[in-house]
Amino acid sequence: MQRITPRTLSGFMELLPARQAQMDAVLDVLRETYELYGFAAIDTPAVEAAEVLLAKGGGETEKQIYRFTKGDSDLALRFDLTVPLAKYVAMNYGQLAFPFRRYQIGKVYRGERAQRGRFREFYQADIDVIGDGKLDIASDAEMPAVICDVFRRLGLERFCIRINDRKVLNGLFAYLGVGGQTGAVMTAIDKLEKIGREKVSALLTDLGMTDGRADELLDILSAPDPMGALEALAGKCPALDEGVAELKAVTGLLPGLGVPDDKWRVDLTIARGLDYYTGTVYETQLLDYPEVGSVCSGGRYDDLAGYYTDKKLPGVGLSIGVTRLFYILQEQGLLNEAILTAPCDALVIPLGDDPLYAVRCAAALRAAGVRTQVYTEKRKVKAKFAYADKLAVPYAVVVGEDEQAAGVVGLKDLRSGSQVTVPVEEAAAIVKRSLNDPARPVKEKERI
Amino acid sequence: MQRITPRTLSGFMELLPARQAQMDAVLDVLRETYELYGFAAIDTPAVEAAEVLLAKGGGETEKQIYRFTKGDSDLALRFDLTVPLAKYVAMNYGQLAFPFRRYQIGKVYRGERAQRGRFREFYQADIDVIGDGKLDIASDAEMPAVICDVFRRLGLERFCIRINDRKVLNGLFAYLGVGGQTGAVMTAIDKLEKIGREKVSALLTDLGMTDGRADELLDILSAPDPMGALEALAGKCPALDEGVAELKAVTGLLPGLGVPDDKWRVDLTIARGLDYYTGTVYETQLLDYPEVGSVCSGGRYDDLAGYYTDKKLPGVGLSIGVTRLFYILQEQGLLNEAILTAPCDALVIPLGDDPLYAVRCAAALRAAGVRTQVYTEKRKVKAKFAYADKLAVPYAVVVGEDEQAAGVVGLKDLRSGSQVTVPVEEAAAIVKRSLNDPARPVKEKERI
Repeated sequence: MQRITPRTLSGFMELLPARQAQMDAVLDVLRETYELYGFAAIDTPAVEAAEVLLAKGGGETEKQIYRFTKGDSDLALRFDLTVPLAKYVAMNYGQLAFPFRRYQIGKVYRGERAQRGRFREFYQADIDVIGDGKLDIASDAEMPAVICDVFRRLGLERFCIRINDRKVLNGLFAYLGVGGQTGAVMTAIDKLEKIGREKVSALLTDLGMTDGRADELLDILSAPDPMGALEALAGKCPALDEGVAELKAVTGLLPGLGVPDDKWRVDLTIARGLDYYTGTVYETQLLDYPEVGSVCSGGRYDDLAGYYTDKKLPGVGLSIGVTRLFYILQEQGLLNEAILTAPCDALVIPLGDDPLYAVRCAAALRAAGVRTQVYTEKRKVKAKFAYADKLAVPYAVVVGEDEQAAGVVGLKDLRSGSQVTVPVEEAAAIVKRSLNDPARPVKEKERI
Repeated sequence: MQRITPRTLSGFMELLPARQAQMDAVLDVLRETYELYGFAAIDTPAVEAAEVLLAKGGGETEKQIYRFTKGDSDLALRFDLTVPLAKYVAMNYGQLAFPFRRYQIGKVYRGERAQRGRFREFYQADIDVIGDGKLDIASDAEMPAVICDVFRRLGLERFCIRINDRKVLNGLFAYLGVGGQTGAVMTAIDKLEKIGREKVSALLTDLGMTDGRADELLDILSAPDPMGALEALAGKCPALDEGVAELKAVTGLLPGLGVPDDKWRVDLTIARGLDYYTGTVYETQLLDYPEVGSVCSGGRYDDLAGYYTDKKLPGVGLSIGVTRLFYILQEQGLLNEAILTAPCDALVIPLGDDPLYAVRCAAALRAAGVRTQVYTEKRKVKAKFAYADKLAVPYAVVVGEDEQAAGVVGLKDLRSGSQVTVPVEEAAAIVKRSLNDPARPVKEKERI
């Protein structure tokens, strides 16, 4: 037979089982946290009609898209979960209750140039709240609460959610006489961290911000107390006042929502996508790894699905690039290597060759909720234990002729080496108690 | 703006949120049951190099495949989870512990002619046990146990797992002198249910089964006690003896594995894929809906990955076409419509316009593990309750000025209409008790 070399495409993450167990634990945290906030799961196809997916049109995305024909259909792989959401809401408008709160965790595809830490197939985990005609600002305050919960449940504490409002920026620009050049001004401001204040100031002056206006803007944007700096401008520009009122409404609810003060701050320099967000915007930084950029972003938009429907559907949402986040956690050593990644809690090891008593014991363990495998290969006992070691299984349930005759099992804790001889029901109870012990070294969803 | 009509491709399942909750409950049952048996999750890309995916070559599949180029890469969407498993095991051979037990639940793609109940994108849920060089027959016995557990946890009792062994068929054919025409004989036998015994007998006679051999074969295949019929032939053909010994080993372990006698039977007429399976084979019928065919099939194969590696990797596995199964359950009214499909357990309803006390209460409910949403739109109280009704939320947590002043909430059971005024922590406890009540009408994973 002619052999083909098996390989996985570059830019496509594929993990060994123990690592996959950690990835799945991350996805479980996301799912559980999103559900805790009352978001409903939806699942849209990975393949859509190209015309539908590209209805919005657009730039970078269109170049990266996987597009192909099948028969006479022009198809494409989804490149995000937002366009499919817009399609879903527009199609099912009459059957949804608004505000419509959905989460979706799924793979998306972008044919980017392959490079370290960049993926062509990756999981996004999105939440959005969609209003019918309007949506109260209180929903915007919920997003940082969800982000905060997600990251803490992932075992991370050193992060900061940066919050801004596009209306504040637009108001400031209008007040400072560059309201017509929002895009160019934002592009300049976006370079603050990279090229420094002086060069940005020069860029802004080139844009017409003379007579100290560039410095006035930069002073406000980088003020230690940005809310104070904004309030000093109260009454000077209605558009700015509106933005500041929104930002105050959002940040005012955060303590009530349980977001600690050290987990967020107003940062007037962030803007996100220029053509999409219209109000609140969020970014999330890992404080010890600023070089990786934002690991969770989102914001408020006026019009989710204008290219599909004449219904006005404002919303607010956020997106986590899970594959990239997992890659970063792994690279930075932030995954908890102590959690149980074994595929089972107990491995039943028959000392002899007849598996009947062993499978009976396994059935009893499973009936009690213990994840159980039986080792049924006819190999030496030493090889059977080596298998348990390789998989890092916490318990061996050893059954030989003596155990069978006495109707018991030998339960061996493979971490401590201690062994007891007990009826199988008691063995199940011991394993389950150990699994539920808060100090258990086994799969725990609370800490990845 | 020019509008595009939003649509979802034909043959691609997309569900409304309440239905999606039921689908997700089915996927949860599969995941939990597979994990209970000690299978490890893997997740392979949906896109692979076409050369790798089509290494085995092949007929129907190749016509149905979604294949396309991106840059100079010849790519394809996976059409099953078995080829990606073969790739994975061949690639990672040195890093896996054998027997390697993996499960994978994921979407696969087949560009079939669209028809009712046929899907082009659908979930498969596979388990396989892969041996290194050899794999004991005991693993074959585990498959019916897993199937049985899955279907019972899905709330189904009226099903039957049909078990056969390809070696028994091959032995029978050799014994009856048509060993060289296995394929043609199997094709004829496969028509038994469709065209009846007489016509199949004529087909077999055409294949050279004269002198009553066609009838002898059909008598054995349709014997009320197939194992008895086979044992009457003991010693007459070594190949047959080997097959019968396997079938006895598999069926002999089923009671010990907890598979009730009425959930399985030996059926010598099933064969599954002719070029792939080499030993035990399984099919699963829903007894009241025989017309839908097998809803869970699988079997033993000698060589998982011969087109990738010279390692001999025998295995046994099964596959459930989850999207089709869900479609059938839905069509036949077999989904439990009483389970909670609401996106939250409690909806906090502020009677006034200030959401601060409401979001505080929501944070407390979430901290206690109650899935909670706050209704923060500024609408009439009646509209707020109508929203809860539309989503079928079981509890409303009503907070007005009086409740805030007294530090309590009004907890209303929206199913019974009863209401109590209690501190929020007690409200959380009541909701949680109700969720954990075995008689609870809320999301229960045990019964879809």
